[in-house]
Amino acid sequence: MENMFWIGIVGAFIALCFAFVQSRKVMSCSEGTPEMQKIAKAIREGANAYLKRQYTAVFKFFIIMVIVLAILAFTGLVSKFVPFAFLTGGFYSALAGFIGMKIATSANSRTANAANESLNKGLRVAFSSGAVMGFTVVGLGLFDITVWFLLLKYVFHADANTVGTTMVMFGMGASALALFARVGGGIFTKAADVGADLVGKVEAGIPEDDHRNPAVIADNVGDNVGDVAGMGADLYESYVGAILATFAISTAAGYGWSGMFLSLALAVVGVIASVIGTFFIRTGENADQKALLKTLRTGTYIAAALAAVAAAPLTYFIMDGKMGIFVAILSGLAAGCAIGYFTEYFTSETYKPTLDLAEATSTGPATVVIGGISLGLQSTSAPILIIGAAVLVSFFAAGGAASFNQGLYGIGIAAVGMLSTLGITLATDAYGPVADNAGGIAQMAGLDEKVRERTDALDSLGNTTAATGKGFAIGSAALTALALLVSYVDIVSTKMAEAGKALDLSLVNPPVLVGIFIGAMLVFVFSAFTMSSVQRAAQSIVVEVRRQFREIAGIMEGKADPDYAACVDLCTKGALKEMVMPAVFAVIVPIVAGLVLGANGVIGLLTGVTVTGFAMAVFMSNSGGAWDNTKKYIESGHLGGKGSEEHKAAVIGDTIGDPFKDTSGPSLNILIKLVSTVSIVFAALIVKFSIM
Amino acid sequence: MENMFWIGIVGAFIALCFAFVQSRKVMSCSEGTPEMQKIAKAIREGANAYLKRQYTAVFKFFIIMVIVLAILAFTGLVSKFVPFAFLTGGFYSALAGFIGMKIATSANSRTANAANESLNKGLRVAFSSGAVMGFTVVGLGLFDITVWFLLLKYVFHADANTVGTTMVMFGMGASALALFARVGGGIFTKAADVGADLVGKVEAGIPEDDHRNPAVIADNVGDNVGDVAGMGADLYESYVGAILATFAISTAAGYGWSGMFLSLALAVVGVIASVIGTFFIRTGENADQKALLKTLRTGTYIAAALAAVAAAPLTYFIMDGKMGIFVAILSGLAAGCAIGYFTEYFTSETYKPTLDLAEATSTGPATVVIGGISLGLQSTSAPILIIGAAVLVSFFAAGGAASFNQGLYGIGIAAVGMLSTLGITLATDAYGPVADNAGGIAQMAGLDEKVRERTDALDSLGNTTAATGKGFAIGSAALTALALLVSYVDIVSTKMAEAGKALDLSLVNPPVLVGIFIGAMLVFVFSAFTMSSVQRAAQSIVVEVRRQFREIAGIMEGKADPDYAACVDLCTKGALKEMVMPAVFAVIVPIVAGLVLGANGVIGLLTGVTVTGFAMAVFMSNSGGAWDNTKKYIESGHLGGKGSEEHKAAVIGDTIGDPFKDTSGPSLNILIKLVSTVSIVFAALIVKFSIM
Repeated sequence: MENMFWIGIVGAFIALCFAFVQSRKVMSCSEGTPEMQKIAKAIREGANAYLKRQYTAVFKFFIIMVIVLAILAFTGLVSKFVPFAFLTGGFYSALAGFIGMKIATSANSRTANAANESLNKGLRVAFSSGAVMGFTVVGLGLFDITVWFLLLKYVFHADANTVGTTMVMFGMGASALALFARVGGGIFTKAADVGADLVGKVEAGIPEDDHRNPAVIADNVGDNVGDVAGMGADLYESYVGAILATFAISTAAGYGWSGMFLSLALAVVGVIASVIGTFFIRTGENADQKALLKTLRTGTYIAAALAAVAAAPLTYFIMDGKMGIFVAILSGLAAGCAIGYFTEYFTSETYKPTLDLAEATSTGPATVVIGGISLGLQSTSAPILIIGAAVLVSFFAAGGAASFNQGLYGIGIAAVGMLSTLGITLATDAYGPVADNAGGIAQMAGLDEKVRERTDALDSLGNTTAATGKGFAIGSAALTALALLVSYVDIVSTKMAEAGKALDLSLVNPPVLVGIFIGAMLVFVFSAFTMSSVQRAAQSIVVEVRRQFREIAGIMEGKADPDYAACVDLCTKGALKEMVMPAVFAVIVPIVAGLVLGANGVIGLLTGVTVTGFAMAVFMSNSGGAWDNTKKYIESGHLGGKGSEEHKAAVIGDTIGDPFKDTSGPSLNILIKLVSTVSIVFAALIVKFSIM
Repeated sequence: MENMFWIGIVGAFIALCFAFVQSRKVMSCSEGTPEMQKIAKAIREGANAYLKRQYTAVFKFFIIMVIVLAILAFTGLVSKFVPFAFLTGGFYSALAGFIGMKIATSANSRTANAANESLNKGLRVAFSSGAVMGFTVVGLGLFDITVWFLLLKYVFHADANTVGTTMVMFGMGASALALFARVGGGIFTKAADVGADLVGKVEAGIPEDDHRNPAVIADNVGDNVGDVAGMGADLYESYVGAILATFAISTAAGYGWSGMFLSLALAVVGVIASVIGTFFIRTGENADQKALLKTLRTGTYIAAALAAVAAAPLTYFIMDGKMGIFVAILSGLAAGCAIGYFTEYFTSETYKPTLDLAEATSTGPATVVIGGISLGLQSTSAPILIIGAAVLVSFFAAGGAASFNQGLYGIGIAAVGMLSTLGITLATDAYGPVADNAGGIAQMAGLDEKVRERTDALDSLGNTTAATGKGFAIGSAALTALALLVSYVDIVSTKMAEAGKALDLSLVNPPVLVGIFIGAMLVFVFSAFTMSSVQRAAQSIVVEVRRQFREIAGIMEGKADPDYAACVDLCTKGALKEMVMPAVFAVIVPIVAGLVLGANGVIGLLTGVTVTGFAMAVFMSNSGGAWDNTKKYIESGHLGGKGSEEHKAAVIGDTIGDPFKDTSGPSLNILIKLVSTVSIVFAALIVKFSIM
């Protein structure tokens, strides 16, 4: 078995080929009228410009980190591969984000144009571009892991334990990149969105996506840099992190190469299952919202079922018939699907919670806000119970009662199971912003009413899949973080023993307890940072849009074009400036806490961050999602419809929900993984120099 | 030393005598004009009626619990004293709340009338009534503890360990009562407040505290049942809980009777220090806000300093010169003061955070809400770092490095230190609602402008002390919960060993980890419950007030009286109905989680609840406080003043903040202590019947 790791390259090849085929399919479609092409070009250029500047800024951070890591490597505190792996992790993650965004910004006008022909055509184009993102992430992730693995094993002849404990440090590059992508992209998209809404919709009274709004292009750019590139980087990190965590635990669990191979094989099988799943996504012309959702669900569920079926023989042959591990994999897959379902329940206007929230608009904005917060807080119950159940089932099924480390391996492999069909899950998620953009283009280019109805149907579906996608992203981040946590414990226990320090992870050990407190604090303060960042960046957009309305004559009559680029530029500057503080905070706190509280405290901190961050992320995403859909529900003619007092209250709720669901909430996914990867890399330093 | 525990009775006697003297002082003042007497009577009757019905409802719950506890006692799963102690704990807590509220509702009109004479007179009356509450809580708490102690020691001849581990179970009665008082009172007060504001202020455009508003009496009643009786029960529980927790740990730490005696002696010394502190609270006629605040602070700080000074010889003689324990006590006292300071920094309009928040009103309600949430999230950093530091300092100073249990005793005694001067701390806090009510009465009775200026000054100060008081209540709840947590571990470790189960509190033990997750969930869901309770109850008030405005002719012209009693009645019904679900949830979840996850899981749950609950409570209290003061800041003429768009945005923020700071936030204080006391009482049951 141990010489078959090359299948990782095969899996990567399949995923990347499929992504290539899908991208050709998208690019072969027509971009539509010159007007549409012009708008699409503006969005594309804005997105490219932002991403270039973001990557330039991130590059500087990477240079600093590589120097730090090189010093650590030089003094023997990390493996000499870490600085290089840090770079490749960041590079592939960035590349995946770049490709995904490139295709998304090419697919938006093509989707709008295809919707001109039929709903099914529109769906296929948008979904194909989502698939490019999904499979690129998976393909590059597998490629990066496998190449490093083969290098370490065959060129440097490392043993299984060394490979595992070294490679788990490689996740930090992807984590760091993801942080900037999620936080920066999240700030960009919501600053543009909030700014455009506050002045355009509320003050000037022009519709959403109106070409007279100077921030409209920035808003569309934001969908791509935040929801496509940011989401891609987020899940790239979870995907790689989960696999590497099982690598790290495998030897301690007594499975050596086999345990690692199962993880990789499962990922490869997931790629194939995802490819097959995509073929089931198609729809008839008269499909309604439910039918559209059903076809996307069908594809995802078929992929999950195929992966589950294939996992049985894989486990049987690779792990010598230890079918408890198969149960662990199943629990991960099931948890992913279940979290998606409950996210939908709490955020979709077809269910009671959001309908109740809509009723609360009748007593004004205050009650809508209270109701939405209460809904979000309440909605944490299901995902937490699901993840809790998955942890217990995977731990005990994998033999945790008899062998603790085998149980921990079970938790890791459950995370890999959950993420194995990421190709298709991410495709349905990245599809959303493309459909959203297509709707915007159709509106701005003044396309036929019929086309807009179709793009609206696609867009509305995109909102639902975006919400469930977020639930999946959070759930997988939590499970990945737990897998990383247990691998950290594994790594640090050896180091502590060597340093003659005691590993005491008991809850009543004060450094552990204080670490948990600090972890919770990190989550709260980080959320505060990202939220006030959006507020500050949005405020600058508000000022600029007001200025343009005032100073550019004829803008309101459609006689003069607004200066779209100025808004894009402002968002870019705002996002880049504002992303620094949270990022630095997220990297510094675990290191400083570690130096004071020691490794025991760090493990407390990781636990505190994971638990509180998970709950907080679910709360924020679901509150935001429910507010968004409440607004949409009213806009579709209920409770007084557009322009009513109820609608105004709902718009306020939605505006508050914007940074909740698209900036602070998703950024927490990164935080909980990043603190783990940072801690893993700096483990030796902490153990050596900590004062406790 | 061990035969000197009767000093607890002396301490109780001093406290109760002082409370009695203060109450005579209040009652000797005149109630003012017949109009004022009429209003005060309506408030008093409403408050009495509510409290009676609340206690009746709680009595039923207590009956059920006593039966359950009797069964447990009969089967040997708890000590036979527990059912009785459960009753006395609940009884004294209820009695303290009743007395405090009785005097508060008698002092409101007297304060207004005294303010007619001079500001100093007004301050003295309001403060005296606060002191009645503060010293009654302390006196009854000390009395209950000491009587039980003497009974167990001298009548039943129990040894130190038995006394400690038995008495720690006695906290549950006070916990359960506090839950109902805080949650029920919190729902009552905010339903009335929100309801009165939404219709009266926003829709009908009449000022706050206007006698034409049918909910105005209910609003004033709410201040008493929520902020006086609720707050008193909360701190009664912390006070008793902290002392009992040190009793429980003392023997394991090797201190036996001495460790217990230090805790009690510290409390007695704190009573005397508090009494002395009150004499420093007085003011000149032309005192401004700052001078008023300074005099209250002076009193509190003098009391804390006296307690600190006295603690040194106490520790020296009782603990045989182990002065590390003195350092632990100091860390508790210092933490209490520091948390108060930072709470003020984040919520008072004299500092940057709230001033920045006020600026955000210029872009509408959405940005105010985002800004307030972000401020609250950010503000968790200081209290968490302070509590973290207090835990580490008290643990290590008390000898935690050499003896783990002595370190844990240090954490317990730090909590006692923090709470030792509760008499005066609670007095400054309970003073707030009295001043608030006095202002309302002055407004409703149409007193002279000069009187209202004075009551406004007192009220405004009351808002600041209420905020810092909340900070103190949360901080002490967290430290008490940690002390209870460690005493739980101590108790359960013996029981687990007897049952042949392994106590494994390692963070990576899945039941522990899942327990932490469930704990965090409990906090989020409990907050959701309390918040939506307020919303539902407020909605019913909105409907009723609208009905009265519509149906009672001449109400707006002041020709007909509104039906105040109907609103009081609705609030009562709403609060009693809505408090059941959160209460049951808080009691059931730790028991069910324990039966599934075992004692290890329970300890995880307690940790998760304490950490997340602490952060969440600080967040909610401070967001709410900052919104409140933003509104007041604008109303005092800044940023456009009353009636401006900025003011409207601030009112929305304040309305959202109401349940944050007065219902959900403070209720979490109880939650984190209640789950501990419930778990302690049900420990034997859990150990015996849990499936893990």
